[in-house]
Amino acid sequence: MALTDADLTRIAEAVDEDRLWRMHMEMAAFGATPKGGVCREALTPEDVQARLLLAKWAAELNCDVSVDAIGNMFIRRPGTDPDADPVATGSHLDSQPTGGKFDGAYGVLAGIEMLHALDAAGVTTTRPIEVINFTNEEGGRFQPGVMGSQVFIRPDELERMLNVVGADGVVLKDALAVYRAEAGDIGEKPLNTPYAGFLEAHIEQAPKLEETGNTIGVVTGIQGSRKYLVTVTGEEAHSGTMPMRRRKDAVLAASNMVVGLHRLMEDPVDLTRFNVGRFQAYPGAPSVVPGEVRFSIDFRCPDDGLREALGGQISGLCQALAGPCAVDVQEIQRSETTPFDPAVMESVRKAAARAGAPSMDLLSGAGHDARNMARICPTGMVFVPCKDGISHNEAESATAPDLAAGARVVAQTVAEMAG
Amino acid sequence: MALTDADLTRIAEAVDEDRLWRMHMEMAAFGATPKGGVCREALTPEDVQARLLLAKWAAELNCDVSVDAIGNMFIRRPGTDPDADPVATGSHLDSQPTGGKFDGAYGVLAGIEMLHALDAAGVTTTRPIEVINFTNEEGGRFQPGVMGSQVFIRPDELERMLNVVGADGVVLKDALAVYRAEAGDIGEKPLNTPYAGFLEAHIEQAPKLEETGNTIGVVTGIQGSRKYLVTVTGEEAHSGTMPMRRRKDAVLAASNMVVGLHRLMEDPVDLTRFNVGRFQAYPGAPSVVPGEVRFSIDFRCPDDGLREALGGQISGLCQALAGPCAVDVQEIQRSETTPFDPAVMESVRKAAARAGAPSMDLLSGAGHDARNMARICPTGMVFVPCKDGISHNEAESATAPDLAAGARVVAQTVAEMAG
Repeated sequence: MALTDADLTRIAEAVDEDRLWRMHMEMAAFGATPKGGVCREALTPEDVQARLLLAKWAAELNCDVSVDAIGNMFIRRPGTDPDADPVATGSHLDSQPTGGKFDGAYGVLAGIEMLHALDAAGVTTTRPIEVINFTNEEGGRFQPGVMGSQVFIRPDELERMLNVVGADGVVLKDALAVYRAEAGDIGEKPLNTPYAGFLEAHIEQAPKLEETGNTIGVVTGIQGSRKYLVTVTGEEAHSGTMPMRRRKDAVLAASNMVVGLHRLMEDPVDLTRFNVGRFQAYPGAPSVVPGEVRFSIDFRCPDDGLREALGGQISGLCQALAGPCAVDVQEIQRSETTPFDPAVMESVRKAAARAGAPSMDLLSGAGHDARNMARICPTGMVFVPCKDGISHNEAESATAPDLAAGARVVAQTVAEMAG
Repeated sequence: MALTDADLTRIAEAVDEDRLWRMHMEMAAFGATPKGGVCREALTPEDVQARLLLAKWAAELNCDVSVDAIGNMFIRRPGTDPDADPVATGSHLDSQPTGGKFDGAYGVLAGIEMLHALDAAGVTTTRPIEVINFTNEEGGRFQPGVMGSQVFIRPDELERMLNVVGADGVVLKDALAVYRAEAGDIGEKPLNTPYAGFLEAHIEQAPKLEETGNTIGVVTGIQGSRKYLVTVTGEEAHSGTMPMRRRKDAVLAASNMVVGLHRLMEDPVDLTRFNVGRFQAYPGAPSVVPGEVRFSIDFRCPDDGLREALGGQISGLCQALAGPCAVDVQEIQRSETTPFDPAVMESVRKAAARAGAPSMDLLSGAGHDARNMARICPTGMVFVPCKDGISHNEAESATAPDLAAGARVVAQTVAEMAG
């Protein structure tokens, strides 16, 4: 059944800012760091404790919890039609090794707060509603990241992922077995079951909402990216004796490339994201003219045409700036821009307006589980501001009112989609 | 007694190109690498074998061998006045880990060939003549380099140097004890004894002789240098989300500095030597905007005024090019240009002319033991060409005729100084 504007407003009003904030603080105790952040990597004892607390909260809401083969957790609120595909929201409880209290956790806890609000508002939906906690979104301990959602939509990846060896030498399936033992009697959920829709709430990890005074980001998609490894080859020589004009200096050539590439990527509308995060000279001795430099390129841009065009110039520009050195440019990864569902976006926009929260459309620069879910169902994301756009950092910060505003949007949008 | 031009010509003619080449090949067997180079670091078993062969050759020349407290070897040919201060030539038998057959070894073997030539020419000098093999010139295994000559002129450094721990964990005095045990009954030489002169023969390690068609480099001195460590501090951020204009990208700032510094150091007469040999970004993750770069500067220039002026601009230029980052420039080492003795240079010039070898004045870009010896006696150096100026490299190459030409210059000059 379609919910009325009045129903949705009532749901929004039932979101409890204080309760949502307390859940964040309680969850942040697992893996709390001295600097106020969180170290809660996937399937560590801290992550297992966080999962057990989440299951306890689900039980208090009279919701069933089930787990799939990669450890994703599904908290289910029944609908009136048990055969209808559910609508889900969620994100992940795991963090970076020096992460913050909000990246990932917010999307799960906003879902729990949504369940409270639906109960308080006395709303029953046709479709079941689920809150998902995806396994290993961050990919710090076990590579790659967004692993749980990837396996969920591609069960053929399961075996490979279960056998991933962590940075600490632990095999993922062994770490998962520890959680399963702690979780006790819990339902099993098959992989790749159908969904009627998915919505993920997340801190923005960028400063646009803050800069523009908006509270809600209506996420239009996740930008595509191209990643490269560049190897510049010069010639080692004695730095005190070899004349400058005879040198093949790999650091000078690579520095010219970095400066030139940044000039190529200059963008008045500030859409492109270009980064040389790794840059290392070999042999790395002060008195040896460097014979080799290896540097990385992470280039992201939402405009597929522009990304293709600019990305296509990278190798040629490096060649042109190599001077007496040789250069090899390898493209090692490429992903297209993932657009989110226009109807979900419109539902989010209206929910923000109903909750009195100023909103704007924006694109996600980072990857999220929603990118995978978008392959199997209508999907969207809701962003809320984080201080100075800082994330993947213990200094990550968000306010209780902003988090509550996002939860109000999630609760309305998911309820509307579940009808 | 003063030797005549005829005496000196006779000495030059007694130098045996084939014998000198054979000694190089025999010596290069100790530590020979598959690529045709030499790995014979100071006081390794290979270096000890090289020292024993040198002592055997000295014995065949009826010369005494003595060793000082840091392991420098002194091969002495008596003069008619036993109380006169000796004149010495020499260099070092130790090599870089991936070094060549000629760097260092040539200066010692040219000295041995000189002794043969003096015998063959039937020349007796007033002053004793010595051939010195200095310990640990390269400084690869035990830091710092030019250690043997430094301790020789500054005995107060002895204790510190004997306790230096090598890259392989071996303490220098223990490695030295192994050599002393192998050397058997050998004379002891005090540190810091006076010399009437010192001349070091060496491959040029630069391409000027080759480019100009000269065989002999009359070395006018060793250029001064200034060394810096630069730390650029930015701010780590998510490379997919943080807008470019908000970033503090340490790699971009450091690349601008490298390019700008090379522009500052551009020099139409090609005197300056500027090198950024080490350049490393932290944390070094492709998708993290780099928060820090550390790079080294090795800046050498023979002109003291120019070196002061240009060196004085380095910090300010780095500041100007730091953009949103902070930069700290530390000067960690500084040495003045060491001029060689004009009389020694003139003697070298005349010896080259007498030997029919075209010569030119040039300055040494690299440091040598002669820099230390210049503090205690009239000192000079003789350079011979090496292929493409390449050294500190297994591909290092020099020709038998060029090596012989240098030995002819050494033999005449040392004999003239020994009178």
